[in-house]
Amino acid sequence: MEAKTAEASKTIMTDLVLPSETNPLNNLFGGELLARMDRAASIAARRHSRRIVVTASVNHVEFNRAVPLGSVVTVEAKVSRAFKTSMEVYIDVWVEDRESGMRTKANEAIYTFVAVDETGTPIAIPEIVPESPLEIERYEGALRRKQLSLVLAGKMKAKDATELKALFA
Amino acid sequence: MEAKTAEASKTIMTDLVLPSETNPLNNLFGGELLARMDRAASIAARRHSRRIVVTASVNHVEFNRAVPLGSVVTVEAKVSRAFKTSMEVYIDVWVEDRESGMRTKANEAIYTFVAVDETGTPIAIPEIVPESPLEIERYEGALRRKQLSLVLAGKMKAKDATELKALFA
Amino acid sequence: MEAKTAEASKTIMTDLVLPSETNPLNNLFGGELLARMDRAASIAARRHSRRIVVTASVNHVEFNRAVPLGSVVTVEAKVSRAFKTSMEVYIDVWVEDRESGMRTKANEAIYTFVAVDETGTPIAIPEIVPESPLEIERYEGALRRKQLSLVLAGKMKAKDATELKALFA
Amino acid sequence: MEAKTAEASKTIMTDLVLPSETNPLNNLFGGELLARMDRAASIAARRHSRRIVVTASVNHVEFNRAVPLGSVVTVEAKVSRAFKTSMEVYIDVWVEDRESGMRTKANEAIYTFVAVDETGTPIAIPEIVPESPLEIERYEGALRRKQLSLVLAGKMKAKDATELKALFA
Amino acid sequence: MEAKTAEASKTIMTDLVLPSETNPLNNLFGGELLARMDRAASIAARRHSRRIVVTASVNHVEFNRAVPLGSVVTVEAKVSRAFKTSMEVYIDVWVEDRESGMRTKANEAIYTFVAVDETGTPIAIPEIVPESPLEIERYEGALRRKQLSLVLAGKMKAKDATELKALFA
Amino acid sequence: MEAKTAEASKTIMTDLVLPSETNPLNNLFGGELLARMDRAASIAARRHSRRIVVTASVNHVEFNRAVPLGSVVTVEAKVSRAFKTSMEVYIDVWVEDRESGMRTKANEAIYTFVAVDETGTPIAIPEIVPESPLEIERYEGALRRKQLSLVLAGKMKAKDATELKALFA
Repeated sequence: MEAKTAEASKTIMTDLVLPSETNPLNNLFGGELLARMDRAASIAARRHSRRIVVTASVNHVEFNRAVPLGSVVTVEAKVSRAFKTSMEVYIDVWVEDRESGMRTKANEAIYTFVAVDETGTPIAIPEIVPESPLEIERYEGALRRKQLSLVLAGKMKAKDATELKALFA
Repeated sequence: MEAKTAEASKTIMTDLVLPSETNPLNNLFGGELLARMDRAASIAARRHSRRIVVTASVNHVEFNRAVPLGSVVTVEAKVSRAFKTSMEVYIDVWVEDRESGMRTKANEAIYTFVAVDETGTPIAIPEIVPESPLEIERYEGALRRKQLSLVLAGKMKAKDATELKALFA
Repeated sequence: MEAKTAEASKTIMTDLVLPSETNPLNNLFGGELLARMDRAASIAARRHSRRIVVTASVNHVEFNRAVPLGSVVTVEAKVSRAFKTSMEVYIDVWVEDRESGMRTKANEAIYTFVAVDETGTPIAIPEIVPESPLEIERYEGALRRKQLSLVLAGKMKAKDATELKALFA
Repeated sequence: MEAKTAEASKTIMTDLVLPSETNPLNNLFGGELLARMDRAASIAARRHSRRIVVTASVNHVEFNRAVPLGSVVTVEAKVSRAFKTSMEVYIDVWVEDRESGMRTKANEAIYTFVAVDETGTPIAIPEIVPESPLEIERYEGALRRKQLSLVLAGKMKAKDATELKALFA
Repeated sequence: MEAKTAEASKTIMTDLVLPSETNPLNNLFGGELLARMDRAASIAARRHSRRIVVTASVNHVEFNRAVPLGSVVTVEAKVSRAFKTSMEVYIDVWVEDRESGMRTKANEAIYTFVAVDETGTPIAIPEIVPESPLEIERYEGALRRKQLSLVLAGKMKAKDATELKALFA
Repeated sequence: MEAKTAEASKTIMTDLVLPSETNPLNNLFGGELLARMDRAASIAARRHSRRIVVTASVNHVEFNRAVPLGSVVTVEAKVSRAFKTSMEVYIDVWVEDRESGMRTKANEAIYTFVAVDETGTPIAIPEIVPESPLEIERYEGALRRKQLSLVLAGKMKAKDATELKALFA
């Protein structure tokens, strides 16, 4: 399998915040944004692997900015690193002001997907070639996040997570 | 403000997996489950604080088990710890086998909510009194997770996260 | 087949009133509440029978109290009595005031479900053992309601509905 | 206020059974049909009263016939009788076979609506003039059903329900 | 195959404008109305052909009148002309004023459907017999519109579109 | 008001075909695609005008290719020409094959939007500067389409539509 660039998986999902997706303050529900990011990220994972993909985990997500009803929201997803059968996908969310046209970063998130065949069995996928400085930074951080995920899930001992330990040294 | 038990915030949301919520393998979309957990957790946070609440962050979530179309899914949410204006909510998800009646743990998640007034300004909330051994364990882990969240968001230096460093010592 | 308690079928569905479910007065549509109650009641019927279940009838339902947008609504369903292949399910609906935390009864309803196999043929189910005074009261009323249903559907003559006649004697 | 014919309130809602409305047997969920009937009946009640209307109660509903995915379903609603501020609405549901074009009665239902002003206060409405034999039959049965509803809700003593008692004499 | 009247395909879909279907001015989204008209027109096409039908094209649609949240909207669809395997369907949309009861024409549209068998292959359908003056006018215009459609799609040369050229002579 | 490039309004909406959007052949409903295109095109119109925009008309749309459940669909919208208060928006729809990664053109459509202020009154907007050959071709065709639209709506006499007549000369 030939490695592919991160850029080749890039997925853009621009859409409105609809009335059925808002909370009592008339802002987008956090849960709805999580669902939209999942759809965009799954398309990026599918573009990279050309397989059926299923969500394996969601990394830490911060909601820093309320997104009001009627806003234009752009969700951009790109595979940051591929492991044997799983992929880390980085998602950036932008909100656009109608009058000024200015785009503001609303939040970012990291999801992990596994490529599977029709029976649901994990299947090998191509590697990722990061190109831009941001793609390289995210590619390099991916291993550390994978260790953190394994430690939090109790599948790796904290003392064996070499990449992670360096962070707290 | 008087402290309240974790149990008092307990929220149970049992529902079916509907056809409009499934992926190409006929299982519940990860994103839909994230949205359901957000609604259940927000109700728990609201029961504890009696305020409007908004999602502030989602901790690491693992999806270990596919949830097929037509399943009965139970989402249970309980506030694990309250800080000044924010609450950590623990969510346990169970799937029920129709024929045997057996409940299996599908996954768990941790969301953080902030209590706000009508203008969206954060507002002080009561403390949590954990009672059961599991409530106490989750209450104690909450501070470590808060530090991890601050470190990952670049708002605290890793070396100052005393609770967290202990984990990797 | 061993009889089971009514309590074993108890199903709790707590959820928000979403903007897409409201009428011009910004209250929950009666029709949406009927649909939610149907889902909760079908889960209770399925928990009791461990079969696929289909809605057979809806008894008289009163809507006594408007349920405003953003409310927390709890639908509780429990099988009140099992006949050969059908079950009567009692549903109680509660609305919660955010500020006081007080729960008010919004309405109650009675649905009947039939247990079926994969081809849609009715199939025998276990009996119900009522325990609490309320469970016993509802269990005893079920036969009278079944007769009323048969009379209204023209499948039983009014003069043969002994339980029912007693009511008007 | 001038009386109006039942026919003037007639409302026809023909639509498909969509994939998001089906149960595990691929038939229309009972709850979804209850919601559709509520919308059609509320339009009939609004046409008669020219007021905002809210669902007050649902009479006994039988589901006699499964309605498969992709079916064309016609819901017909007509006000059968008007009381001071409330209206009884009769709903007939038909399913159409694509190949033969034949329409089969799937079920019927009776809903009651109350006309209200912008503050939600009940408000007087015109009377109904039944014309066809079926309209007259339903008009005459409405009083008996209203008594039954009051008796079941504990708002009228069974022995005072003269119309109803006649049924069991 | 026997020809059928246009009237026999007539489909009426009356429904409310729900909160989840509105734009920032609280009016029905144009896109939602296009989707409703597609469902109603597909039922009319199916009633005429007694086949599975798929949307082939949408003629020019004008939105002349905003349709506010809570309105009662009636979509009426009727097959205007049948060709070998395709049908032109005319759709009229009416909005009803609650207080006066007056119906106003909101817009009209023309969709074309193709009848197909289970494998998706086009299949022959009966002819249409127009009866009323309006049905005859629409029947006659259908050929001109078909030519316009073929010209716009580059499948017919403008100079060969005899019906159409007459319009600009 | 300064003129803007067509490119500046470009809007990309990539999303999955969900189970709730499919017809009996398991393909995307024509009406759902019309609704998605309306949302994407309205965002492009809003990006160009920085105003609230409402759908004014939909030009002829052909559906040439079935879009199966689970497909990745990309809707790309760009303002092709601005008139005084209205904009023509061109929409291209692409479907992606999961295994080969190949994108196929599914269909294209042209919608017209009007920019309005908070009261719904039309308001002047900037001009469009087409740059690429395709943008120029679409810009030039826009006037002809506007005349066609006016003729079809009976607001312009066919003999005065100079741009259009040339087509049939």
